[in-house]
Amino acid sequence: MSDLDSASKHRLSLNQMTLDQWGLEDVIDGCVRAGVEWIGPWRHKVQEVGLEEAARMVADSGLKVSSYCRGGFFPVFEHEIAARRDDNRRAIDEAAALGTDVLVLVCGPSVDKDIESARRMVVEGIAELVPHARDAGVRLGIEPLHPMFAGDRSVVVTLGQANDMASNFSSDDVGVIVDVYHVWWDPSLYDEIQRATGRILGFHVSDWMVPTEELLAGRGLIGDGVIELRRIRGAVEAAGYGGPIEVEILSRDLWSRPGDEVLSAIVSRFPEHV
Amino acid sequence: MSDLDSASKHRLSLNQMTLDQWGLEDVIDGCVRAGVEWIGPWRHKVQEVGLEEAARMVADSGLKVSSYCRGGFFPVFEHEIAARRDDNRRAIDEAAALGTDVLVLVCGPSVDKDIESARRMVVEGIAELVPHARDAGVRLGIEPLHPMFAGDRSVVVTLGQANDMASNFSSDDVGVIVDVYHVWWDPSLYDEIQRATGRILGFHVSDWMVPTEELLAGRGLIGDGVIELRRIRGAVEAAGYGGPIEVEILSRDLWSRPGDEVLSAIVSRFPEHV
Repeated sequence: MSDLDSASKHRLSLNQMTLDQWGLEDVIDGCVRAGVEWIGPWRHKVQEVGLEEAARMVADSGLKVSSYCRGGFFPVFEHEIAARRDDNRRAIDEAAALGTDVLVLVCGPSVDKDIESARRMVVEGIAELVPHARDAGVRLGIEPLHPMFAGDRSVVVTLGQANDMASNFSSDDVGVIVDVYHVWWDPSLYDEIQRATGRILGFHVSDWMVPTEELLAGRGLIGDGVIELRRIRGAVEAAGYGGPIEVEILSRDLWSRPGDEVLSAIVSRFPEHV
Repeated sequence: MSDLDSASKHRLSLNQMTLDQWGLEDVIDGCVRAGVEWIGPWRHKVQEVGLEEAARMVADSGLKVSSYCRGGFFPVFEHEIAARRDDNRRAIDEAAALGTDVLVLVCGPSVDKDIESARRMVVEGIAELVPHARDAGVRLGIEPLHPMFAGDRSVVVTLGQANDMASNFSSDDVGVIVDVYHVWWDPSLYDEIQRATGRILGFHVSDWMVPTEELLAGRGLIGDGVIELRRIRGAVEAAGYGGPIEVEILSRDLWSRPGDEVLSAIVSRFPEHV
């Protein structure tokens, strides 16, 4: 039923937001049918079924969990800091309960125009989470987002910046996530991937379409766009990363198609394009 | 008729694409009515009326020309190189005929997935233009575009990269354009503005909206978004730039409104927000 060779089989992970048209149970069943071994669940989808039930479904399926998405959103007003910290601790506990040791951090936008202060709040927020994460056996992966999300999703926008932030912590505790969609344009990309050696906790793939019709859900199926996927994968592996590769495609087009059709396209394209 | 104090009056330039609903003659008349002293014309708008007529209209109006937009688009297939070079030389001649000594370079996308080669072609293309530009008394301003345009408009996406490229040339010949919309998100912004000292050939303002609805024409009126306009202006001036400040707002919303209303809003907001 699957076109995956065994080398790809052990690497391909399906990030759940690629199939937003499905709930967690559908995604799990679909992955099992397609011969995909890894899954990357999202928090709001887990909450739809409840953590306990989600953890049971994942365990019963035999799928491995590559990462849990997401914690973060650190810059908040003073009176919200404690609540945000508690919520991020719960995200860590949920990651552990689902059987992964990686929590992806989307660091959040600034609450005002002062983007530098917001960036300091990110580092402070991570520092406060580290002890809890270490106790739970979960590492925190700082994911730089594309600069077009600097205003509404993440003040962390380059891999260099994520590396700088991560360097404040032990590599046992904090690393970075390399998502090609967010970093492919960066003139410093290959230098920064090399600098991230020993800190890469995840590698995500999709493609940049020309033209790109919308900011959030305009990503392309691997192979349909302009990103040098294989070159970036090579650099990430030369930097020591040999873990699962999450296919994470936020795409209004893919979300409108039958889930099994999307999965089948990913499975057949992965060995050729990634 | 104008709200502009005299300090602002001497700095504000209206980039023509802010008023795409108008032709060149309308924009010139509108600026004169609004008390704006500078204008930044675009090439396709000049071509609509013809260069000679455009140059005459500008001269008769008394407006000064802050820059001409645009040359560039250097990465092309081998057989297209000569034609592109000739076209860029014409853009330089047109800039001189219109009475400005600054040609804005939008450097263009790659013709394939090899973004590094495309970046080398940009530097080669600029090198080939420099003698002609020098003879015409025109300086070339490399404008880094926002990374969301890396696939379709410019492989030059950071001010650091533009500074690196410009450093291959004399500052009498090649400099950089700082457009807040394209660079506001950059963690290295203030360092790179400082590094650009003596090379800044233009400063453009608009605002980043949250949310941003589309990639090309989703810019905001100055003061409506999240960019620290005054702080960036301060840094650009500390780096020695005291020339005109172009208000360049590509916005489907502004394009749908009466031009005089848009101009009036810009004139009244400029002293407060820029």
